[in-house]
Amino acid sequence: MNALELSPEEFRRLADRITALAEQWLVTLDSRRIAPALTGADTEASFAEGLPEVGLKEAALDSLPLLLEGARAGNARFLGYVLGSGEPVGALGDFLASVLNQNITAWRSSPAAVSLERAVVRGLATAVGCPGFSGSLTGGGSAANLMGLAMAREAHAPANENGSPSGVVYASTEAHMSIAKAVALLGLGRRNLRLIPTDSQWRMRPDALEQAIAKDVAAGRRPLAVVATAGTVNTGAVDPLPALAELATRHGLWLHVDGAFGVPAAMALPELFTGLERADSLSMDAHKWLYQPVDCGVLLFRDAIAARRAFSFSGDYVRVMSSDSVEGFAFFDESIELSRRFRALKLWLSMRYHGLAAFREAIHRDLQNARRLAEAVEAEASLELLAPVSLSAVCFRYAGAVPEAERDAFNAGLLTRLNARGRVYLSNATISGRFALRACFVNHRTTPEDVRQVVEEVLAAAKDL
Amino acid sequence: MNALELSPEEFRRLADRITALAEQWLVTLDSRRIAPALTGADTEASFAEGLPEVGLKEAALDSLPLLLEGARAGNARFLGYVLGSGEPVGALGDFLASVLNQNITAWRSSPAAVSLERAVVRGLATAVGCPGFSGSLTGGGSAANLMGLAMAREAHAPANENGSPSGVVYASTEAHMSIAKAVALLGLGRRNLRLIPTDSQWRMRPDALEQAIAKDVAAGRRPLAVVATAGTVNTGAVDPLPALAELATRHGLWLHVDGAFGVPAAMALPELFTGLERADSLSMDAHKWLYQPVDCGVLLFRDAIAARRAFSFSGDYVRVMSSDSVEGFAFFDESIELSRRFRALKLWLSMRYHGLAAFREAIHRDLQNARRLAEAVEAEASLELLAPVSLSAVCFRYAGAVPEAERDAFNAGLLTRLNARGRVYLSNATISGRFALRACFVNHRTTPEDVRQVVEEVLAAAKDL
Repeated sequence: MNALELSPEEFRRLADRITALAEQWLVTLDSRRIAPALTGADTEASFAEGLPEVGLKEAALDSLPLLLEGARAGNARFLGYVLGSGEPVGALGDFLASVLNQNITAWRSSPAAVSLERAVVRGLATAVGCPGFSGSLTGGGSAANLMGLAMAREAHAPANENGSPSGVVYASTEAHMSIAKAVALLGLGRRNLRLIPTDSQWRMRPDALEQAIAKDVAAGRRPLAVVATAGTVNTGAVDPLPALAELATRHGLWLHVDGAFGVPAAMALPELFTGLERADSLSMDAHKWLYQPVDCGVLLFRDAIAARRAFSFSGDYVRVMSSDSVEGFAFFDESIELSRRFRALKLWLSMRYHGLAAFREAIHRDLQNARRLAEAVEAEASLELLAPVSLSAVCFRYAGAVPEAERDAFNAGLLTRLNARGRVYLSNATISGRFALRACFVNHRTTPEDVRQVVEEVLAAAKDL
Repeated sequence: MNALELSPEEFRRLADRITALAEQWLVTLDSRRIAPALTGADTEASFAEGLPEVGLKEAALDSLPLLLEGARAGNARFLGYVLGSGEPVGALGDFLASVLNQNITAWRSSPAAVSLERAVVRGLATAVGCPGFSGSLTGGGSAANLMGLAMAREAHAPANENGSPSGVVYASTEAHMSIAKAVALLGLGRRNLRLIPTDSQWRMRPDALEQAIAKDVAAGRRPLAVVATAGTVNTGAVDPLPALAELATRHGLWLHVDGAFGVPAAMALPELFTGLERADSLSMDAHKWLYQPVDCGVLLFRDAIAARRAFSFSGDYVRVMSSDSVEGFAFFDESIELSRRFRALKLWLSMRYHGLAAFREAIHRDLQNARRLAEAVEAEASLELLAPVSLSAVCFRYAGAVPEAERDAFNAGLLTRLNARGRVYLSNATISGRFALRACFVNHRTTPEDVRQVVEEVLAAAKDL
């Protein structure tokens, strides 16, 4: 008997208990407080006892209710950040992925799982209007954006071998922080990231981009890449992709689209994403607007050779022993990862169970819910809409009788109070220097009634203050 | 009703089917072919139909047996690469993690889950002899090594802001390919990675390291970091940590320990890892020698400030609204990731269920199995041991009547044949220029009888040729 033995009967019994907990969580989700009513100190105390020398066996599961009690409940009124709602079929796919424990390094190591991931990636690329693109699933948008920019660097100013990376990256003032993190990590220096001004709809201004490129060229610097944002985190703005693609082509720049938030919506609103197919690389997060459990990022690229140029560096011990194009395929030649979780299974199972049409419909409902909230905000005299609604992020604030100069502080306090009430969860954004409450709809559970409750709770929180 | 609605009854029914599949997989694991007998073309064909427009509902599960048929079966005789055996309690933890769908960005977003991960990281650090270290769970050793070296770069030659990274990194000729990938990605240039020769036991030679540092200093280059390997992938060699720590201290260099493979063994064999506590950062993979399902890497560091210096760059929309040291904590300030899967839950559940003592015992058994295989190889006239066994990797080859000049090709063919037979799975390594068969024991299921079968199967595969 091995030291970590688990009999089939034990496995079945534990699986039944975990399934019952999961079911209980899902059934009670709607009635749970979203943000738990626990302090940091209390929460730390719950898990302070550490890892026991002698196993607790089934009693190890007895402290799981403490975890559930202290967890954020992502129900229909959780509208914070950009975080998908965790579709349960996807969670079951994750369970099976962990039991099968395939390591998605190369076909040689995990044949069917590698073929399945490649099929999922092709299917996603086609679904968002980029047929023929390949790529891989990642831990999230941060990794996918990092890889896209690493490919850009190696395509236009290779530094893998000799170091001394240089070049300028352009993104809008609304770009996600992962872009600056990637530019820093790649050794390009954040001072070589130009944040280009946006128009009244928070979309990058192509004229300002062109000026910035010209200025850098005149100063002897090398423009490298344009990062278009397709769904800014703050307001959901989609940069003008055709114009940016045109500029990138004209100046010989790499075009990376950060579509972590927005690109899944190309399945439902393709006209908003015209030009996406001209990207050299793009990121999108299936754990955002495809409702999958974390983590499930996606990197797509037009040219696998560019990915290999950036990432291929194989040690001998993973030497692939086949010249067959399928059997010789290795994700690690096209990724910063070597060991890789079988992320594709949840997406494959969830999308085959529900079908693409149901995902399109869920995305349309999110878009409608966002418009519904914006209309309710505009209809309510004490609330103020702070930005047009491009996708499904709604930025607004409480104004009421609060003097303009005090509204930032008031709304920051209101947000804390709102989330502490436990029924609705929003996050925040800064819109033209103003503190905004921000609701983001990437939640298949949200109904019009939930949207109504958002307004009700915001007004109640304001009253509490 | 939402577009992706799943009733509690449907969830329960699907969970039962997935659990039954999981149970069937685990119960039949030992009798399954490890490497499936399918061609690349056949495997691709199994998953070619793509993502359907209309959902298949429960029929979506009907193609899962195809996946199981084409998956690598990680049973007791899977000894390839360095891949843990997927302890099933961990898999159940992963299931619950996906249902709860906590995003481990910051305490504010997922309170209990963040506290739990911090407790798990503290517990692991203590278990391997580095009490007081903090850190986070990662997608694997590649990400952890990248982060360790990014911290080194920002500590000694900051480039985040201004770019132009420079400096020399030292690792042994046996270092993992992820080190070169990290050096390249960080813009340091692979030509600034010095591969220091090893001794007869494949451990980095401190005298050669000292010479290399002196040479770089004399040439006006800036030494940055030493990467010690604690468990080389090929032979399991552990670099002399005290001597390397001494040199790093004397020359003011960052010490990163790549312990992805070996460091968990510090729980069982602490004397082999003396000096580990002098590392500035270290990586270890719980999906290797702590038997967890992929992915579960670990990055530990001595000084959280160094991590923040390298990675903190917060966008406003994730502004943490608390000055409490627990409630204000954000993993994204200490990591390249923003969205993060709740990886800690599987480890927490698995280690509490079985207890640290059972993990120590499992590691000891792997060490014994490796020695057992080495002895069997030495006892068998037609086999040849190619390296001493430091941890649990065993490199050997078939010699028999094969002329020396033909042994590389013969053993490459033998490995293909061996794995195609389906009962045992090994990978390969190059030892002093020679093609080696390599068995790596990080598998809680392996018994002495399985070790016996490895020898039997290798001899049978040789006979087949």
